[in-house]
Amino acid sequence: MASTVTLLIEPVPAGETRHDLDATFREVDASAPALRVGELSTQRGDGIFETIAVIDGHAQEARAHLERLRNSARICELPEPNLEQWQAAIARAVASLPAEGEFALKLVLSRGVEHGPAPTAWLHVAPAADFSAVRARGIRVVTLDRGYDRDTAERAPWLLLGAKTLSYAVNMAALREAKRRGADDAIFVTPDGYVMEGPTSSVILRHGDVYSTPAPSGAILHGTTQQSLFEHLEATGARTDYRDIRVPELGTADAAWLVSSVRLAAGITHIDGSPVAYDADETRALNDYLLSPRD
Amino acid sequence: MASTVTLLIEPVPAGETRHDLDATFREVDASAPALRVGELSTQRGDGIFETIAVIDGHAQEARAHLERLRNSARICELPEPNLEQWQAAIARAVASLPAEGEFALKLVLSRGVEHGPAPTAWLHVAPAADFSAVRARGIRVVTLDRGYDRDTAERAPWLLLGAKTLSYAVNMAALREAKRRGADDAIFVTPDGYVMEGPTSSVILRHGDVYSTPAPSGAILHGTTQQSLFEHLEATGARTDYRDIRVPELGTADAAWLVSSVRLAAGITHIDGSPVAYDADETRALNDYLLSPRD
Repeated sequence: MASTVTLLIEPVPAGETRHDLDATFREVDASAPALRVGELSTQRGDGIFETIAVIDGHAQEARAHLERLRNSARICELPEPNLEQWQAAIARAVASLPAEGEFALKLVLSRGVEHGPAPTAWLHVAPAADFSAVRARGIRVVTLDRGYDRDTAERAPWLLLGAKTLSYAVNMAALREAKRRGADDAIFVTPDGYVMEGPTSSVILRHGDVYSTPAPSGAILHGTTQQSLFEHLEATGARTDYRDIRVPELGTADAAWLVSSVRLAAGITHIDGSPVAYDADETRALNDYLLSPRD
Repeated sequence: MASTVTLLIEPVPAGETRHDLDATFREVDASAPALRVGELSTQRGDGIFETIAVIDGHAQEARAHLERLRNSARICELPEPNLEQWQAAIARAVASLPAEGEFALKLVLSRGVEHGPAPTAWLHVAPAADFSAVRARGIRVVTLDRGYDRDTAERAPWLLLGAKTLSYAVNMAALREAKRRGADDAIFVTPDGYVMEGPTSSVILRHGDVYSTPAPSGAILHGTTQQSLFEHLEATGARTDYRDIRVPELGTADAAWLVSSVRLAAGITHIDGSPVAYDADETRALNDYLLSPRD
C-alpha cells in the first residue's frame, strides 16, 4: 500500500463519456518534477483546488467537494471539470491507500501552461498531520480584517470571492500573523465588523441549541464540512441558522469552532487573547461524526 | 543563440559571498517538467516574482526590479534574496539571447516545496509579444473596483498589498472582465473613488506639463517603469507628482498611460467606453526612451 499517490490527469471535457478514464491518469513520483515552469498555477496562482479527507479508506463528502470545484471553475471561467473523471481519479487514488488512517487528498485544476491549449490537472494524496491533540484541546484564534465590505462580492465578481483559487498567499500570511500573535488560527472579519471565515476553515457558533454560521454570500466559501455538520445537527433535532454574525458574538457564544475538511472541528478556546466558552465533550461528539464515513 | 532560457536556481542566502555562482544555476528545458506538485507556488500562489524586459541584449532596470523583489520578500516573510546571485543569473541568461529583439525575463522566488527545507527559485526568459501596434495605437481601458479602501494596506499588512506575489488570479480575472467589456486593460480603483494601478501596470496622467501617478502607499506597487519614466521626464524639465488621484481625473487629463516593464507605455484612448485625449507623438517619444538601454 502506498501512503502517497500523485496522479497527473488529462482533463476530459464535461459531458464527454469515456470508458477508459483510467488511461487519462498517469501516476508520478511526488518527489520528481511533474510541472513546467510555464504553469499558470505557479506563475499566477491561476487555478482552483479542493482538499478532501480520506478517512479509513473513505473519501469524505467527495461529491460536495466536486460540486464546489465546478462552482469555482465557473467563477474563474475555467473549463467545466468532468466530475465523473475526477471521481474516478479519487477512487483510483483511494484504492492505493491503506484501509486505515487519515489522509489529505488535494485536487488541482490549473489554467494550464502559458499560451498552452488546455488546462492541467492533478491529484495528490498524502498522510494528514495528526490533529488528535488539536481536536481535544482546541485552538486560540485571532480576528483579522479581510479588507472587503460585505457587499463587495456582488459588486466586484472579478475579485473571485467565493471561488477556491490557488491564489492563497493572503490566507497563508494570515496564518503567519496569527502565529506571531501567539494564536493557532485566524478568523477573517469585514472592516464593518462582521465575521467571515477562517483562511482555511468555516466558523460555527452555538448559542443554546442554535448553531449558526455566517450566511454564505458570494464573499464566503460555502464550507463542505460546515454543511455536513449542519445536516447532522438538524437530524439530531438541533436548530441551524445562516445569518450575519457580528464580531462580538464570537466572545458570547456558548461554544465556537473552526471546521475544515482535514482538521475537522477545532473548538475555539481564545479569541484575540481572551478565553471563551469551550466545550470539549461536544467537540469530541462532533468529531466522532466527522470521522465516520460521510457522502 | 537560444530565444528561450530556463534556469533553476539554488538560492544562496543574502550576505553570503559565493565565487562559483554559476554552479548554483541549472539550465533546463522549459517544455520539460521542472517543478514538483508539492510546490507552494502552485498550491498556494505562495511566492513572489518580477518581470524584466531584455531589449537588444540589455536587462532593463534590473537593479530596481531586484530591489523590489527584496521588498516583496520582506512583506511575505520569505528569506531575503541574494541579489548578486540573481544578477548573475540574469547575466547568464541574457548572454545566451540574441543581441537584438525584445524578451520578457521572469524571476520567481517560491516558498518551496510543502514541508520542504528551503525556497525554490527560477528564471525564465522568452521572446516578448509584439507590442508595436499597441504602443502606436493605444488601449481601451475600464475601471474596476479593487474592493480595498485606501487605508487598507496600513491597517492589514497580512493582505500583502505592495508585494508582487504569485497570487495573481484576481489580476487575471480583471483582464478577462476588461476584454468582456470590449476593452484591452483595466485600472483598479478604490470603493471610495481613487485611482490605484492596472492589474499588471502603473497609471501615469499628464495635465499640462505635470505628470502624476497615484502616491505609492502600501496598497500600490511602486512601478519600476513609472519611476524610470519620471526620472527621464524630470531630466527633461517636466514636473512630476505623486498624489491622490480621483477617478474622474482619468477623463480630464491631457494624456494618460498604463506603463509596464515589457509592454512599456500604452496610451489610453478610452476610459469605460468614452474617448479621452490621446497623444500618439508623445507616446512614441516615451517609448523611444523606454526602449533605450536603462539601468
